Amino acid sequence: MILTVTLNTALDITYRVRSLRPHASHRVSDVTERPGGKGLNVARVLAVLGHEVTATGFAGGATGRVVQERLTATPGVVDALVPVAGATRRTIAVVDERSGDTTQLNEPGPTVTPAEWSAFQEAYADLLASASAVALCGSLPPGVPVGAYAGLVRAAKAAGVPVLLDTSGEALRRGVAARPDVIKPNADELAELTGSHEPLRATQDARRRGALAVVASLGTEGLLAATPEGRWRATPPARLHGNPTGAGDAAVAGLLSGLVERLPWPDRLTRAAALSAASVLAPVAGEVDRGAYEELLGRVAVTGEVTAA
Amino acid sequence: MILTVTLNTALDITYRVRSLRPHASHRVSDVTERPGGKGLNVARVLAVLGHEVTATGFAGGATGRVVQERLTATPGVVDALVPVAGATRRTIAVVDERSGDTTQLNEPGPTVTPAEWSAFQEAYADLLASASAVALCGSLPPGVPVGAYAGLVRAAKAAGVPVLLDTSGEALRRGVAARPDVIKPNADELAELTGSHEPLRATQDARRRGALAVVASLGTEGLLAATPEGRWRATPPARLHGNPTGAGDAAVAGLLSGLVERLPWPDRLTRAAALSAASVLAPVAGEVDRGAYEELLGRVAVTGEVTAA
Repeated sequence: MILTVTLNTALDITYRVRSLRPHASHRVSDVTERPGGKGLNVARVLAVLGHEVTATGFAGGATGRVVQERLTATPGVVDALVPVAGATRRTIAVVDERSGDTTQLNEPGPTVTPAEWSAFQEAYADLLASASAVALCGSLPPGVPVGAYAGLVRAAKAAGVPVLLDTSGEALRRGVAARPDVIKPNADELAELTGSHEPLRATQDARRRGALAVVASLGTEGLLAATPEGRWRATPPARLHGNPTGAGDAAVAGLLSGLVERLPWPDRLTRAAALSAASVLAPVAGEVDRGAYEELLGRVAVTGEVTAA
Repeated sequence: MILTVTLNTALDITYRVRSLRPHASHRVSDVTERPGGKGLNVARVLAVLGHEVTATGFAGGATGRVVQERLTATPGVVDALVPVAGATRRTIAVVDERSGDTTQLNEPGPTVTPAEWSAFQEAYADLLASASAVALCGSLPPGVPVGAYAGLVRAAKAAGVPVLLDTSGEALRRGVAARPDVIKPNADELAELTGSHEPLRATQDARRRGALAVVASLGTEGLLAATPEGRWRATPPARLHGNPTGAGDAAVAGLLSGLVERLPWPDRLTRAAALSAASVLAPVAGEVDRGAYEELLGRVAVTGEVTAA
């Protein structure tokens, strides 16, 4: 199975209102809820691709219970979230029906105690034993040390499990130094890591900092990859209109499934770009329709060069 | 025990944010949650006064579970909520720390099926057998017939249980015709019921429509009562600064406890006005501090006249 780690899980709630006006009272016309946090989004897309996935991380309180119930009801995904005393956070996206704009309210995550962090690390080590690859995704909740991902990368490598890291800021900086197999920063995260706003240079620089392969997700410009085998760019078909939330998570699922299936890099990137595009086009942010993905597969252009042996 | 009915229960969530701006992303700095819906607020205040209270109405889904857990943890309150398949609604109050203003987002209530409505009516009839008084509070969720309160008023009267009705619009109009012992409209609800914006005339008119006693809550002007025994006005001490949310529910608790304790009307009104004022002054909307209430009791002025025998 593929293991995804989401230390800061969430219940993502979407409200539709006629028009959001501060200081007014609003009737919510429609409520949707789904388990959130980048690693859970990755898990769902991997399941759509037919992979067996185990999702770990933390869950607590009434909201954590809802996240676990929903996860358990997702075909192909096994819930291995570790309990915390604090409450899993809710995120609320308020969609203004008139303008189409979204206002976001994000609760703080639960504070994880040292004992809970230790319990997670033990559970993680156990899960690695049967994992073919692992994705470490998203922000760290309060209480988890900033070097957490570096430790989880090292544990995966010690267990011989390929590891992809998708986070930001100091957690990414420290994690990269532990030499993950792949990182998937977006343009901002890559610039913050390397100090360079020039993606070609920055992906190379991120490799020098420790990442074996770097795949930068550059929005409408697609993916830019620097790997030991070569450098490639995967470009989606024309400009896509839709919701880019979750597109990066779909790309992670594509990269990870391609790694497990031992696809050549260009094929992994094609898959990742097609999943990313399918996610943008999906009516619900981050959900991927298998039919749309398969149709898009043929419309991704990959260009690049293989590294001389 | 005193029975309170809340057909449209809620989980009231309060978020604090630095400054609410549409289309931006916000970190919520503080989250508080409590069971809501007018009848549950009434139940809490009755418990503070030392009464045994049973709270019924509907609860469903994950949010309903949280409401029931919280209610069970409230000393003096017994949870007798009836299950529904739909999810209990959340209300979210977003408090802007800079302006102090509140933006409200209210989910729709669950749709109650005819079978669920029948199950509630049976449970209600059973609970009436051991009730000394009953309060019917708040709006009707979708699926519950608009004449619901009229039926519940009649059932209470048939069981010999005094009944207070606190609702609005057509549900109030129909409920009043069933001759409840007390109604407690606010100024708007009273004007909508009677067509008169003159409170003295409107309270008399509401009595003619069927209510045995009418206690109008007029905000900073206090309470105006028209009863078979006389007419009174209870005025709180000066202008109070605070949150008026829940002040009407505190007044209902005062009226109902006074009725059960067979207090004379002026004493019931003094209690209701003092509880209402204590609720306005409380840091959390609708919570009443017993010390503040007792201090305010001596500062409510009641004026009026007894009806000639």
